[in-house]
Amino acid sequence: MALMEISIIPLGTGSTSLGRYVAEVKRYLEERGIPHTLTDMGTIIEGEVEDLFRIARELHEIPFKAGAKRVYTALKIDDRRDKEVHLGTKVESVKRYLSS
Amino acid sequence: MALMEISIIPLGTGSTSLGRYVAEVKRYLEERGIPHTLTDMGTIIEGEVEDLFRIARELHEIPFKAGAKRVYTALKIDDRRDKEVHLGTKVESVKRYLSS
Amino acid sequence: MALMEISIIPLGTGSTSLGRYVAEVKRYLEERGIPHTLTDMGTIIEGEVEDLFRIARELHEIPFKAGAKRVYTALKIDDRRDKEVHLGTKVESVKRYLSS
Amino acid sequence: MALMEISIIPLGTGSTSLGRYVAEVKRYLEERGIPHTLTDMGTIIEGEVEDLFRIARELHEIPFKAGAKRVYTALKIDDRRDKEVHLGTKVESVKRYLSS
Repeated sequence: MALMEISIIPLGTGSTSLGRYVAEVKRYLEERGIPHTLTDMGTIIEGEVEDLFRIARELHEIPFKAGAKRVYTALKIDDRRDKEVHLGTKVESVKRYLSS
Repeated sequence: MALMEISIIPLGTGSTSLGRYVAEVKRYLEERGIPHTLTDMGTIIEGEVEDLFRIARELHEIPFKAGAKRVYTALKIDDRRDKEVHLGTKVESVKRYLSS
Repeated sequence: MALMEISIIPLGTGSTSLGRYVAEVKRYLEERGIPHTLTDMGTIIEGEVEDLFRIARELHEIPFKAGAKRVYTALKIDDRRDKEVHLGTKVESVKRYLSS
Repeated sequence: MALMEISIIPLGTGSTSLGRYVAEVKRYLEERGIPHTLTDMGTIIEGEVEDLFRIARELHEIPFKAGAKRVYTALKIDDRRDKEVHLGTKVESVKRYLSS
C-alpha cells in the first residue's frame, strides 16, 4: 500500500474557483470505493502503487471533460515497502512522538 | 489569508521514518499558536503570505538542527485575494458542490 | 503532447547523494528513445499523457530495484490541448516575451 | 548554497498562456543578477537558503501586480550542507555516473 496526494488544476478557465473540479474528483473516488481523504490542498488516496498511477491518469482527465483546455496535475507518492501504511497511519505516528 | 502545505524531507539519515521530524514541525507550530492541520502527506498552515514564507524558512531548519546534512523542502501556497480562505474553507466548498 | 517533470527520491538510504538513481532514470529514458531533459531539480519528459503516467510508474520502481525501502516520487504534468507543446517550447515562448 | 525550483501559477486569468508571467520572473532575476536557469517546468535559482525564501516571496507577488486574483506557487528547495552545490552541479554528477 502506498499513499498519493494529487492536485489537479485547470488553467485558463476564467474562474478563480476550483471547487467543482475537486467535487468531481471526490465523486469519482466515492463511486469506486477508493479510500481517500480530502484536504484543503489536495486529495490523498490509498492504494497499491499500480492502481494509484492508473487513478491519477483518470482523474487528470476530469477538467478536460468539463471543458478545460490546459490541466496542470501535481502528485506525490509515498511508497513504503518496509511497513504497511494506510490513510491516517502517519498522522498517528506523529502523535505518538508528541505524547512520548 | 493564504494556505501553505509544506513537506520537509531529510535525506541520507539512514532511516525510512520521518515521524520525529514532523512531530517537531507540529510542536513548533503549536508553541506559537499558528493554525495548522497535519495530513498524511504534509502540514497545512494558515496565515498571511508574508508569515507563511517566514515560517517555511524556519521549519526548513528543523532537520538540520537534528543532524541532517541535506534537506529537501517542498511547499505550495494557495493565495486568494478575491475571498477570505481559512483552514477547512475549501473542503467545505467541495461538500457544498457534492450535496447540491 | 504533454510535459512531465519527475523527481524520484529514495528515503533511508543512508547517503545524501542521489546521483546514481538519477543516472538510472536517464539511462532508462535513453534506451527507449524517450525525449527528455535533465535539470538540477528533476527530469522533464515529453510524451502523450497516457505514456507519461506509464513511464512515471516504471521510473518510480528504479530505486526499489537498487535496494531502497521507501521511495517518494513527485511529478507534475502540464497538459495543453489548445496547442502543441514540446520540450523547449515554453522556454522559447518566454524568450519571445523578453525580447519584445 | 542551495537550489530552489519555483513555479508560479495565476488562476482564473482566462488565458491558458503563462509565458508573460514567467518572463517577468526572469526579468526580476536578471535585473538583480541572481543566478538562475529557466526550464520548461519552472525556474531554478541558486542562492543562500535565506535569500531563496525571500526571493520566492517576492516572485509570488508578480502575478498579483499584473492583476491576478489567485496565485498558486509551488517550490522545492534542495539544501545540502555536506557539499557545495551550484546550478549545473547535479546534472554534471549524473553524467559522471553515466560515463563511468
